[in-house]
Amino acid sequence: MDFQNDLILRAAKGEPIERYPVWLMRQAGRILPEYKAVRGALSGFKELVETPERAAEVTIQPVDILGVDAAIIFSDILVVPEAMGLEYQMIEKKGPWFEKTIRSEEQLKYANVDFDVEDKLSYVTEAIRIANKELNGRVPLIGFAGAPWTIFCYMTEGQGSKTFSEARKILYTNPTLAHELLNRITNVTIKYLKAQIKAGVHIVQIFDSWAGILGDAQYAEFGLKYLDKIAKEITEVPVTLFAKGASNSNVKLADMNCQTIGIDWNTDIAETRKIVGENVTLQGNLDPCALYSSHKEIEGLTNEMLNSFESKRHIVNLGHGVYPDVNPEKVKTFIETVKNYEIKYK
Amino acid sequence: MDFQNDLILRAAKGEPIERYPVWLMRQAGRILPEYKAVRGALSGFKELVETPERAAEVTIQPVDILGVDAAIIFSDILVVPEAMGLEYQMIEKKGPWFEKTIRSEEQLKYANVDFDVEDKLSYVTEAIRIANKELNGRVPLIGFAGAPWTIFCYMTEGQGSKTFSEARKILYTNPTLAHELLNRITNVTIKYLKAQIKAGVHIVQIFDSWAGILGDAQYAEFGLKYLDKIAKEITEVPVTLFAKGASNSNVKLADMNCQTIGIDWNTDIAETRKIVGENVTLQGNLDPCALYSSHKEIEGLTNEMLNSFESKRHIVNLGHGVYPDVNPEKVKTFIETVKNYEIKYK
Repeated sequence: MDFQNDLILRAAKGEPIERYPVWLMRQAGRILPEYKAVRGALSGFKELVETPERAAEVTIQPVDILGVDAAIIFSDILVVPEAMGLEYQMIEKKGPWFEKTIRSEEQLKYANVDFDVEDKLSYVTEAIRIANKELNGRVPLIGFAGAPWTIFCYMTEGQGSKTFSEARKILYTNPTLAHELLNRITNVTIKYLKAQIKAGVHIVQIFDSWAGILGDAQYAEFGLKYLDKIAKEITEVPVTLFAKGASNSNVKLADMNCQTIGIDWNTDIAETRKIVGENVTLQGNLDPCALYSSHKEIEGLTNEMLNSFESKRHIVNLGHGVYPDVNPEKVKTFIETVKNYEIKYK
Repeated sequence: MDFQNDLILRAAKGEPIERYPVWLMRQAGRILPEYKAVRGALSGFKELVETPERAAEVTIQPVDILGVDAAIIFSDILVVPEAMGLEYQMIEKKGPWFEKTIRSEEQLKYANVDFDVEDKLSYVTEAIRIANKELNGRVPLIGFAGAPWTIFCYMTEGQGSKTFSEARKILYTNPTLAHELLNRITNVTIKYLKAQIKAGVHIVQIFDSWAGILGDAQYAEFGLKYLDKIAKEITEVPVTLFAKGASNSNVKLADMNCQTIGIDWNTDIAETRKIVGENVTLQGNLDPCALYSSHKEIEGLTNEMLNSFESKRHIVNLGHGVYPDVNPEKVKTFIETVKNYEIKYK
């Protein structure tokens, strides 16, 4: 595909770039009034996720309105557990909620693998096709999935949690069950990402949002192992791995089959570069709260971050999803500052 | 004071010990049926906190029933913001909730400093006196307070949060207000800890439960600075600092006026020892979820942790508060394993 702007793909591969590419996690959804208008006309979040035309529409909005260098398909990581047999609800101001959970062998019946992933999640692949058609090569389209450990957390805990103690309990009481479920999620996720790639995404990101609640040894056994399995299978497009809150593990991610590592806002970019070396691109990591500052301060904080880059292998982003009450004008200041920054490394 | 068992004080000071001392964060409250009986006879959590005889009673229960090497006064870190002017409610299965919050200069009126801390929090000091009398030197009594950053989080956010984005917003939009509020909390906390010491606690711990949501630079400015101020003022008894989720900062804590550093379950003990050196005691850090394992596995996991200690300067604990649904018999196995462990360093 010929892109008008393929900065993010070149940055991911370590090829020369004129300037750093920039996009925001959660850019599709949350902040734009144009998004709220589309969502407000539907019954809620899930209808939007499951309606390809509308999902494609909100996917493209940040490209048109904010001027980001990539689109990311509007969807949710929880479409995978739902496809496997655990339906979720998205409760306003509370987050995801599952009526059933998996905490025993018997309940593994809610974690099916024998189904046609492409067919069951066709609303996502259809949204990808529509979005790509409408993007028409302006910028690449990012696909994504949750990491097996993070999906496991939701399937066992049944909702968000500060400690995910129900999920972590299983690692001690029934590690065999844990590995069985993680393997199932992994297998479906590989098929799901391949379906997204077939439908047209140009890069994929795997979000391990709850990596940080495990110690290094447990994260290696129950988290990294499955990330590695997925990364090995995805050879068609560049892969981004984001193990939020587990910066200790970034050095291991750098050894996997991935081009880019996501960095949360608590992690020092320059220090991470020293640890992971030059053969991987880093993506991040302005504190989402920095966008509450004045325009002038956002410019300063963004330039400060850019000045800490000592390599061309960077994709600019926040260190976490953009917060819902951030003023889109502040996001534009962030993006413009990145675009105006004179890159030192080519 | 002459103690029958002063292991924890000796371990904190780096003096010779025959075996490692052990206690559990949240040991008073949460798990014991005897605690639930006391609490059940009252209107709720807050009445228990504010009734010195009953607070003292549940403080001593784990010494009698579980055989821990220290008691910790039953209370809550939120008694400080309440004393300053922000009343809190403890909502079942949800956590603390404040009707008012502080997000502007005008709202600083809810953060008073001109009051007699000892008088206003006399229910805590009274509970300390009763507990000490009843302990009668069996084990030392631990006092505690929340760190200014963590108290700031609750006073500004008004409730628990995954991101504490309202609290962190202020660090960007109004750092002057943030420092003013942090200073006020710090001043009251110093007075509060001194009142606890005067009433008879033998060691104090400062909990920075939300340290982990800040990057290193912001945590240094808005967190560590105030921890340091408090630690400098507390010279009467050993001080324990616990910056949960901020293991990067442990090396800075080790340079403060403290004897012990708390280590969360995600942090490697041996690695931390290398970083902080030999002049500080480490407290922790079994994963609270490990107590869901079988008795035999708990023994194994506990011994594995103890084998990683390469110094006498350790106090055994969990890496976070014990979870409410843990079987007290499992806690006993943990404690007995520590007591039976043959210490290699004296």
